[in-house]
Amino acid sequence: MAAKTAITPTRADDYPEWYQQVIRAADLAENSPVRGCMVIKPWGYQLWENIQRALDDMFKATGHQNAYFPLFIPMSFLEKEAEHVEGFAKECAVVTHHRLEPDPEGGLRPAGKLEEPLIVRPTSETIIGATYAKWVQSYRDLPILINQWANVVRWEMRTRMFLRTAEFLWQEGHTVHATADEAIEETERMVEVYRDFAENWMAMPVIVGSKTPLERFPGAVETLSIEAMMQDRKALQAGTSHFLGQNFSKAQDIKFQSVSGDIEHAWTTSWGVSTRLVGALIMTHSDDDGLVLPPRLAPAQVVIQPIYKEDSRDDVMAYVNSLRDELAAQTYAGAPVRVVIDDRDIRGGEKKWYHVKRGVPIRLEVGPKDMAAGSVFCGIRNKPKSVGVPREEIVSTIGEKLETLQRELFEAALELRESNTVEIDNEADFRAYFNSKDEDQIAGGFAHCYFADEASLQPLLKELKVTIRCVPINSEAKQGTCFFTGKPTDQKGVFAKAY
Amino acid sequence: MAAKTAITPTRADDYPEWYQQVIRAADLAENSPVRGCMVIKPWGYQLWENIQRALDDMFKATGHQNAYFPLFIPMSFLEKEAEHVEGFAKECAVVTHHRLEPDPEGGLRPAGKLEEPLIVRPTSETIIGATYAKWVQSYRDLPILINQWANVVRWEMRTRMFLRTAEFLWQEGHTVHATADEAIEETERMVEVYRDFAENWMAMPVIVGSKTPLERFPGAVETLSIEAMMQDRKALQAGTSHFLGQNFSKAQDIKFQSVSGDIEHAWTTSWGVSTRLVGALIMTHSDDDGLVLPPRLAPAQVVIQPIYKEDSRDDVMAYVNSLRDELAAQTYAGAPVRVVIDDRDIRGGEKKWYHVKRGVPIRLEVGPKDMAAGSVFCGIRNKPKSVGVPREEIVSTIGEKLETLQRELFEAALELRESNTVEIDNEADFRAYFNSKDEDQIAGGFAHCYFADEASLQPLLKELKVTIRCVPINSEAKQGTCFFTGKPTDQKGVFAKAY
Repeated sequence: MAAKTAITPTRADDYPEWYQQVIRAADLAENSPVRGCMVIKPWGYQLWENIQRALDDMFKATGHQNAYFPLFIPMSFLEKEAEHVEGFAKECAVVTHHRLEPDPEGGLRPAGKLEEPLIVRPTSETIIGATYAKWVQSYRDLPILINQWANVVRWEMRTRMFLRTAEFLWQEGHTVHATADEAIEETERMVEVYRDFAENWMAMPVIVGSKTPLERFPGAVETLSIEAMMQDRKALQAGTSHFLGQNFSKAQDIKFQSVSGDIEHAWTTSWGVSTRLVGALIMTHSDDDGLVLPPRLAPAQVVIQPIYKEDSRDDVMAYVNSLRDELAAQTYAGAPVRVVIDDRDIRGGEKKWYHVKRGVPIRLEVGPKDMAAGSVFCGIRNKPKSVGVPREEIVSTIGEKLETLQRELFEAALELRESNTVEIDNEADFRAYFNSKDEDQIAGGFAHCYFADEASLQPLLKELKVTIRCVPINSEAKQGTCFFTGKPTDQKGVFAKAY
Repeated sequence: MAAKTAITPTRADDYPEWYQQVIRAADLAENSPVRGCMVIKPWGYQLWENIQRALDDMFKATGHQNAYFPLFIPMSFLEKEAEHVEGFAKECAVVTHHRLEPDPEGGLRPAGKLEEPLIVRPTSETIIGATYAKWVQSYRDLPILINQWANVVRWEMRTRMFLRTAEFLWQEGHTVHATADEAIEETERMVEVYRDFAENWMAMPVIVGSKTPLERFPGAVETLSIEAMMQDRKALQAGTSHFLGQNFSKAQDIKFQSVSGDIEHAWTTSWGVSTRLVGALIMTHSDDDGLVLPPRLAPAQVVIQPIYKEDSRDDVMAYVNSLRDELAAQTYAGAPVRVVIDDRDIRGGEKKWYHVKRGVPIRLEVGPKDMAAGSVFCGIRNKPKSVGVPREEIVSTIGEKLETLQRELFEAALELRESNTVEIDNEADFRAYFNSKDEDQIAGGFAHCYFADEASLQPLLKELKVTIRCVPINSEAKQGTCFFTGKPTDQKGVFAKAY
């Protein structure tokens, strides 16, 4: 018989429903009354704030500044880049009126029709590009290295909290350069920032690669992405960095006078990650007892639960207060350890599971017996059992313990990916890999395959619901044979089912 | 003849145009191609980030957490609170369609009509209240103390950068309480946070008061605000905190079981400040040479300008690098001093004015002569002349100098307000005060007047373009006589022309 778990169903029983239940049990977010939009609750939002803070520091360290551009994009702006409008026109919120008036049949109705409809930004290349066209005159004005933290709207029909919502929060970097080389360098620099963040902050191993033409951002010359494996072996695209060539600068007339005096179109990039990262984080580490947070991003890294009866209350609280102060004086990952005391008047077991389900990395229980023994009862989120630890030891090793957990989470995720990655060189094996399910009812994982022609693969990929995630950069792929057509090729892709 | 100024026109010549030119010269923001929306440029956005950071810390210190709610509000939600819809229906962006399709006449047109129009939030009481109604069951769920940083849209016809824009950035706190007293206490606590922030961070003296019924937030029982005087003697409302009574909880059915077991409607509050604060800050301190930033909020508090020829470059740069490190090791207002070296290859005079116009609190020029003398040439933004200061002294007193500037800015603003505030007890003086212009072409300032009945004053106030800003709390007003009707009253208001 299976052990009782805090989350029902378990991952093995029903992975998609498990995901929803982890979010609910951890109090991260909930569906809102507005179609496809979610409410991000305080614990989820603190996680996003920590993600923002870390990324923002990395953006600034690579020379970027923040700015803010309008929420609305005039419809005509979107029309300027053909592929771009094709990519976003089918799923955008359109503002057509600027007031409400009483409806003779009761209630209100839209009034004050706009001369030109406005689109709620699905991404801001067009509106930011129109502004850059005014800012850029000379090579001296370049590069422009700007990032924006904002909300965007894409009218998705099937939504899922954090992974795909009509409105989501993100950052979008938009840069302008004098040469193609510089813009390509920027595109690569930013995908490397995303890799660094994913692996070192989220403890989530990723593959950095280049998207095939059919999977590129609409209007991009090249899209680089980071791809992670979730626990159901599906891939999740966690961040993208686009080299836009001169496509947008030509559509928007971003021109400059070069050193030699010629007028040239500039080269642009854009790059972004979103609240989708929270979904990726949940699905990478969480278990059947709920959320598991990598210590570097956890809103609370250590929770202390005092255990007392009425007559021992003052002594225990004095003890945990001083313990909290000592722990908070330690540093982890360059910042003071984030310690919280939970002295709510609820049952100890209920309190324990409250923090387990919310993914708190380390829980410390302290009662009169622990005080007498000079120890604390320490539970680490990825270990099944709590153990007694001398008080001095927990204080002096708290940073180490957090770092060990951070590393173990990364290693476990990497191990999952490596043990679910195969090389495939023929169609039969490819079909078998993505069709036949293992004991966990999971088909496939990551398949590395040589392939010659993306278009020719489409019927097979659609049939199996598989996509080409990317062609890894820095891969050691040499010459090979396409697994499908048998043609010679030097392109080796990562194939997977995906979110 | 007047001295040459960096900003044309001067405040005295054309105050509204001076305001626009200060924004342009400081590179804070610009109008966007989207009607009524602005682009906040990096220097302006950094200022907003500093405002956010300081306020966010204050909100957290008073027990609040951040969360995020949807951008869109179903039209029917807005209809539930009668005064509220009345207040916002006339100026809101309405989303009616969810995609674009090719228009047979060319270009695109809206398609996919929504069953119910969505309003881009002008403020979030209704959508947040609908969510709270699900969260609140028992007195144990209270209080709810949540804040949101977000963009909002109000379709203003006459816009002005920072002061009144169709889209703006803000924070909105939304809290729920079990009793009226607690909610009133919260309303007062948050207006006090705003006062503290305005006076101690923005160096902007404010009057805290209660709005009269006609000036209240639509749907509020009481609105408290902070009111500041700009340099043209007009008032600017810089933040509001609303006690909403049970109006919204009844409209949205936010109910809870009390300790005694009864089902009761909860008591709610909301409170907000916006990017309007940046406009207030500009108009409070800036002068005819451009922006003046209070040191606590300045993105760069100290700029070092190295002055060198080719052969002295290395020596000067080594000197200013070590000076930068020493200054950055000092603290001001609890954080390391923010120091930047500007070694761009442009003329010294141009560079100086660049930073003067951007409001940098302290500029340090360092060349070979200063090095030889062991000194720096120090310009403080509110002093007309730069002076030589020994290097050790500038390092050891940098925090003091910043704090002196911060204090002097506050004192100057307070002095302006006090010297332009009068007590008026009759209509003739009231008319004269707000009608006849002084040598700066400015009519009026703040007039403190007893008044009995707000409604009866409306024709006079409209004629003179004057408003009641607030009835100050903690005022020493006793019994008096209405300046207009002669009726006895204990209400004493602050009257002013206003933004």
